[in-house]
Amino acid sequence: MPRIITLTTDFGSRDAYVAAMKGVILSICPDARLVDVSHEIAPQDIMEAAFVLRDAVQYFPAGTVHLAVVDPGVGGSRRAVALSAGDQLFVGPDNGLFTLLMGSREPDELVVLSRAEYWRTPAPSTTFHGRDIFAPAAAHLACGKTLQDVGVPSATLEPLYWALPIADEQGVQGWVVHVDRFGNCITNISRALLDGGHEGRTVKCYVGTAIIPNVQNTYGDVASGEPLALFGSSGFLEVAVNNGNASKLFSIRKGASVNIVFTDKRA
Amino acid sequence: MPRIITLTTDFGSRDAYVAAMKGVILSICPDARLVDVSHEIAPQDIMEAAFVLRDAVQYFPAGTVHLAVVDPGVGGSRRAVALSAGDQLFVGPDNGLFTLLMGSREPDELVVLSRAEYWRTPAPSTTFHGRDIFAPAAAHLACGKTLQDVGVPSATLEPLYWALPIADEQGVQGWVVHVDRFGNCITNISRALLDGGHEGRTVKCYVGTAIIPNVQNTYGDVASGEPLALFGSSGFLEVAVNNGNASKLFSIRKGASVNIVFTDKRA
Amino acid sequence: MPRIITLTTDFGSRDAYVAAMKGVILSICPDARLVDVSHEIAPQDIMEAAFVLRDAVQYFPAGTVHLAVVDPGVGGSRRAVALSAGDQLFVGPDNGLFTLLMGSREPDELVVLSRAEYWRTPAPSTTFHGRDIFAPAAAHLACGKTLQDVGVPSATLEPLYWALPIADEQGVQGWVVHVDRFGNCITNISRALLDGGHEGRTVKCYVGTAIIPNVQNTYGDVASGEPLALFGSSGFLEVAVNNGNASKLFSIRKGASVNIVFTDKRA
Repeated sequence: MPRIITLTTDFGSRDAYVAAMKGVILSICPDARLVDVSHEIAPQDIMEAAFVLRDAVQYFPAGTVHLAVVDPGVGGSRRAVALSAGDQLFVGPDNGLFTLLMGSREPDELVVLSRAEYWRTPAPSTTFHGRDIFAPAAAHLACGKTLQDVGVPSATLEPLYWALPIADEQGVQGWVVHVDRFGNCITNISRALLDGGHEGRTVKCYVGTAIIPNVQNTYGDVASGEPLALFGSSGFLEVAVNNGNASKLFSIRKGASVNIVFTDKRA
Repeated sequence: MPRIITLTTDFGSRDAYVAAMKGVILSICPDARLVDVSHEIAPQDIMEAAFVLRDAVQYFPAGTVHLAVVDPGVGGSRRAVALSAGDQLFVGPDNGLFTLLMGSREPDELVVLSRAEYWRTPAPSTTFHGRDIFAPAAAHLACGKTLQDVGVPSATLEPLYWALPIADEQGVQGWVVHVDRFGNCITNISRALLDGGHEGRTVKCYVGTAIIPNVQNTYGDVASGEPLALFGSSGFLEVAVNNGNASKLFSIRKGASVNIVFTDKRA
Repeated sequence: MPRIITLTTDFGSRDAYVAAMKGVILSICPDARLVDVSHEIAPQDIMEAAFVLRDAVQYFPAGTVHLAVVDPGVGGSRRAVALSAGDQLFVGPDNGLFTLLMGSREPDELVVLSRAEYWRTPAPSTTFHGRDIFAPAAAHLACGKTLQDVGVPSATLEPLYWALPIADEQGVQGWVVHVDRFGNCITNISRALLDGGHEGRTVKCYVGTAIIPNVQNTYGDVASGEPLALFGSSGFLEVAVNNGNASKLFSIRKGASVNIVFTDKRA
């Protein structure tokens, strides 16, 4: 049974770039299931692509191929790669996107897409490897080829790192890494980090023009229009407004610092 | 044969929320056909979701499952439901969306999605029931489970009502309930209401800064750039501009009042 | 095996118009593969639809049906047509879109969609032939009907022509015909036109507020933030900025003139 191919790009939805990739895929693997993750990644924003795709990967069945094309270095020296991690496969440019996506985890298997017989003919363009190299590789993987069929084994990915929050006895400083469509401001502060050794302590959260007491469980725990902090569906601390838009209301943008202060005295 | 699942949400297309739901669905029902209705519903706008979905439902084959997730009350006390109406199935939060969608019609069968064995494991989050409760239910329904399999029978839906137009011998007053991508302003005035006992009477339509004589059949019945009123593809009176944008040209927004005046003397 | 149907419209992604067409298609041909090309064509912009679809068609397998609905003349006298060109099929309004798409090429077979038994019942609306005439025709073609089944043979398409660039010994003058999501400005100057008898000559490219020396191979051939001209993935000259947005940086919009001047003396 052919696999699912997800697509994550910065190509937008006005132009034919995504459709060109899908046409190439369906010409090679007619029964592949195509699922769009997002094509609205900010142009050339590798971190945003990794953030969004990371939030989707875990929900897909074993064998899914995730095609991620945010590729500012197309036509240059960056490598084209495919890899496996757990039961999922990934295809795209080796520009740090996959290191971000996997964090401290290593790929189980990594290949460089240097086998020209699996590229689209004629020779790949210098500007659109999504269509000419990555889509064909994803299609062949979805229809049964192995990583070693479509590429040449390699040892390591290009590194790129998330900014890490800083924690001590007084509190935690982190950053807003994503603002979603509702204006929810998602930080890089995980539940494990905030809770680690601090269960039950009371906190205040300073972000943008807001000061938020405590961490809630869901939006409705505060009145409509009130701000709150909560651990969102991705497992990271979010700043939100119940039935409102925290980003607009408190002037919070991606990159804004978030300060969590423990307000009780340590027993 | 697996059924079609349509998706209507306010999740937008930048984030991974829709893809997470699709991954969950395809993990449960790998052959489900997924069709996006819209993910650009204004955040938390239940009426807009009902308006848009209502315009799509009638075109889908029997057995289609319509998954609608505009859910400002997630994590609170609103119920999660699934229901049948005619030959179509619906899944989503019981917040009035489905009452709006069906108007005066009652569901043929209604269940509350309280059977935890059909939720995603681990336990549902408090912030994303689309992924954790509604998508699994839709997937199970698409792959052959019945409403009574996935939920517990219930009697009534949460009520919510459309604003109704007011009609008398002098005319009809209604409201713009939707502005589409072309700037066409769709009202809540149906052909039946305007025609009822008034066939052949001449009218003037006052809306925004426009005064429009008569009701036309199609855009090309007036010159390019001219305003017109017509019964659009959804069966309601629309105010449009031939090859133009009525919303911009006449400063008409959702909620604007529309006055239809009979200009002839009653025989 | 049912065919792929691609969809190109100006319907946007907020409303139910696209979903209505898909519901109609899947009611007729349940196994059709649906691939969106774009629904973000500027309202009623036939040229943009032709430009975008032209960039997608060549990547699809034989037998693909391309459904293109940008239809300012709906309900008027323009014809509804379907046609074949090479191994691809096309369905939509006969308003010049298909002449633009095919350039100097003639359809191999052309029919007018006047057979009412292949329209959606009840009788087509005057405002949404995408749902009532074009989607049913595409679905029947995808599920095995022939052009002659669904329509009545006709000889010629409504003509519409691209603006052509002007070339002489001193240089080439063309126009920007599309600005993509990255701000890349795509012109109507083909590689063949610029190279024809001029291989190896040095050029300067004047466009908006930019003066660009030479033509490069890929974005990375200039420093980050620098402008460049290159032949893009569609085979036409593009003006771009490496890791930037040429449209914004140099105030270049669709329709801007582009002047290529040969700066060497002819040998």
